[in-house]
Amino acid sequence: MESLGHIRLTPGEDGLVILDQTQLPNREVCLELHTAEEMYRAIKRLEVRGAPAIGIFAGLALYVLSRPLASLPYPEFREKLRSLSLYLNSSRPTAVNLSWALRRIENVADGNSDKAPAEIIPLIRAEAERILDEDVAMCRAISEYGLSLLKDGDGVLTHCNAGPIATSRYGTGLGPLILGAERGMRLRAYADETRPLLQGARLTAWELQKAGVDVTLICDNMASAVMKEGRVQFCFVGCDRVAANGDTANKIGTSGVAILAKHYGIPFYVLGPTSTVDLTAKTGADIKIELRDPEEIRSLWYSEPMAPAKVRCYNPAFDVTDHSLITGIITEKGIIKPPYVKNLAALF
Amino acid sequence: MESLGHIRLTPGEDGLVILDQTQLPNREVCLELHTAEEMYRAIKRLEVRGAPAIGIFAGLALYVLSRPLASLPYPEFREKLRSLSLYLNSSRPTAVNLSWALRRIENVADGNSDKAPAEIIPLIRAEAERILDEDVAMCRAISEYGLSLLKDGDGVLTHCNAGPIATSRYGTGLGPLILGAERGMRLRAYADETRPLLQGARLTAWELQKAGVDVTLICDNMASAVMKEGRVQFCFVGCDRVAANGDTANKIGTSGVAILAKHYGIPFYVLGPTSTVDLTAKTGADIKIELRDPEEIRSLWYSEPMAPAKVRCYNPAFDVTDHSLITGIITEKGIIKPPYVKNLAALF
Repeated sequence: MESLGHIRLTPGEDGLVILDQTQLPNREVCLELHTAEEMYRAIKRLEVRGAPAIGIFAGLALYVLSRPLASLPYPEFREKLRSLSLYLNSSRPTAVNLSWALRRIENVADGNSDKAPAEIIPLIRAEAERILDEDVAMCRAISEYGLSLLKDGDGVLTHCNAGPIATSRYGTGLGPLILGAERGMRLRAYADETRPLLQGARLTAWELQKAGVDVTLICDNMASAVMKEGRVQFCFVGCDRVAANGDTANKIGTSGVAILAKHYGIPFYVLGPTSTVDLTAKTGADIKIELRDPEEIRSLWYSEPMAPAKVRCYNPAFDVTDHSLITGIITEKGIIKPPYVKNLAALF
Repeated sequence: MESLGHIRLTPGEDGLVILDQTQLPNREVCLELHTAEEMYRAIKRLEVRGAPAIGIFAGLALYVLSRPLASLPYPEFREKLRSLSLYLNSSRPTAVNLSWALRRIENVADGNSDKAPAEIIPLIRAEAERILDEDVAMCRAISEYGLSLLKDGDGVLTHCNAGPIATSRYGTGLGPLILGAERGMRLRAYADETRPLLQGARLTAWELQKAGVDVTLICDNMASAVMKEGRVQFCFVGCDRVAANGDTANKIGTSGVAILAKHYGIPFYVLGPTSTVDLTAKTGADIKIELRDPEEIRSLWYSEPMAPAKVRCYNPAFDVTDHSLITGIITEKGIIKPPYVKNLAALF
C-alpha cells in the first residue's frame, strides 16, 4: 500500500490516524480515530475532507470497523457492515466518492458470501488499499494531463482545495501546479480563500507554499479583478460530483468563478477522477446540495461574532456549475471535452 | 442642519463625534475626534466610511479644523486650509466624494478672499451643512427612484454597505429597501458579507435588521447560487466613483456580482448621488484603485491567523464594473440609462 502522511492505519490496524485539516495552517495535529462515531465526526467536521480523500478514508474506515466482526456468522457480519456503511455515508450527502468507496467495500462482502468473515476481512483490506493506490495513480495522471495545457509563466486561479490532502498525493485541481513546480516550471497560482471555511487560505495556500509554487491569496470576490487584469490564463478546480451531462457540483462559489471565466474568455477546467462522475445523476438538478450551519458564516473563526447574532444566513456547501461553462473535464483517462453526455458515457 | 447619529459636531464645535463603524455590530461606540491626525485616521481605518458619509465628514472636519485659524491673515489661512485639505484627501484615494467635499469647502475660501477668516469660517460651516442637507435630500430621492422599480415580495441582492451610516439617512444602495420597509412593503434582502472587511455582515445586515427589512446574509461566493435559485430579482449596489462612460468603481467584488447578474438575466443597478460621477475620468481605467494591507486577508478579525503567515496576498479595495454590465444608474435626478456618455453628461 502507498503510505500517506494524512490518512493512515494505526500500527495495530485498530484505528486510523488523520491530519486534522481544521487546524491547518497554524498547527499540524494528527488525530487517532477508533470508533465509527469518531470516524463519522471526522468527515462531518471536515477534519478529513476532499472527495477523493473521503473515499480513501471511508474504505480504510470500513476495514478497521469490520475487524472486530471476524467471528460473526456471515449474515450478521453483512448486516453490521451494511449499517456501518449507511452510517458513515450519512455524514456528508454531496461527495460521490464517499458512497462509491463504501459500495466497493460492500461489494467485496457480497462477492464473497461463500467465505467466512475472517477470510473476507483481508479482502476488504486489499480493496481499501486498491482505492488508495488507484487514487495515487489517478492524481498523477490527472496532473500530467493538466500540466500539458500549461506553459512557463502561466497563472492559474483555483477555488477551495483540491490538493494532496484532499486526495492521496499531488491532488487534482492543484496537481498540475505541484507537478510543474517539481519540474522547475515557473507557474503562478491565485488561491480564492473560499469562505466560509477558508479551505483556500488555510489549505491551498499552505500546500502550494510547501510545494514551492508561487501563490497569491485573494478573497473570493477578487477573482473578477484578477481575471480582468490578465493575471490568470486558466481556472483549475476540483469536483465533488459530475452529472452525466457534465454539470459539476463543487465547493460553493465554483459556478461564480466559471461564469467570470467565461465572461473574460479564460478556459475553465474541472479536474477529478472518473469515480466522481455519477451517470445516475442526469443533470446537476439531480445532485443534492448540503446546507450547513449558519454559525459558519456568522461567527466561526472569529474572535467575536462578525454579524448580528440572530441574522438569518443561507449556507449551501456546494453549487452546480453548468456544463456549458466548462471548457474540459480533466480525468485520469484524458481531457474530456463537450459534448459531455456522449463523451462522459464513453468513459465507462 | 439635519442631525445625524453617526457624524455630528461636538457641542462646542471643536471636534466631531462619529459612530465607530469598525466596532459594529457588537458594540455601538462613539469616538470624539479633535485633531487633523485623528480625522485622517478615522477615514483611513474606516471608522467612518461610505463615499457620501466621508464627504459629509470631510466638510465638517475642515470646518472644525479651520476654527482655530480665525485670527490669521487671509493668505496664511488659505494656505493652512489647503494643506489640511490635501492631508485629509490623502487618507483614501478612490472615493470621489472626499475630494469633492474638500473642494467645496476650499471654494468658499476662494470665493471670499476679500473677507477676513473670522467671517469666512461661518460660511464654511454653512457649506458643510449644505453638503449634509443635500445628502439627506439626495438619499431620499435615490431611494424613491429605486423603490419605484420594486414590487411586493421582490428579492434584492446587495454588496458591501451603502446604507444610512455610509451616507446621511436611508442610504443609496439600501435606501429603497429601508424606505420600502417604512411603507410596509415585504421586500427580501440578500447581503453579501463582503470580504475582507465584512461590511455586508457587520453593517448591512445590522442596518437592515434595525430597519425591519427581511435580510439573509451570505458569503460573497454564494451570490451565483442565490441568483440561480431565483431568490433575487434585482441587484442594488452603491458606488465610489462613476466615470463619464458609466464605468463604476465600487467595493471589490462588485464587478463579479454584475457579471453574474448579466449571466442570470437579473437587472443590476448602481445607486449614488450625481456627486459620485467624475466626468474627468473618461473610463474606469482613469480611476485609481487603492491597494490595502495583506493582513486584512491573512488575519484581521480572526482569533488566530487563518492563512500561512507570510503568504503573499493581493488586496485591492475596489474594482471597476464595466458600463456594459449596468442596467441603470439611480441618482437623485432620476434613473440614468445607457448610453451613459451622453446621458451622464446631460446631468451637468
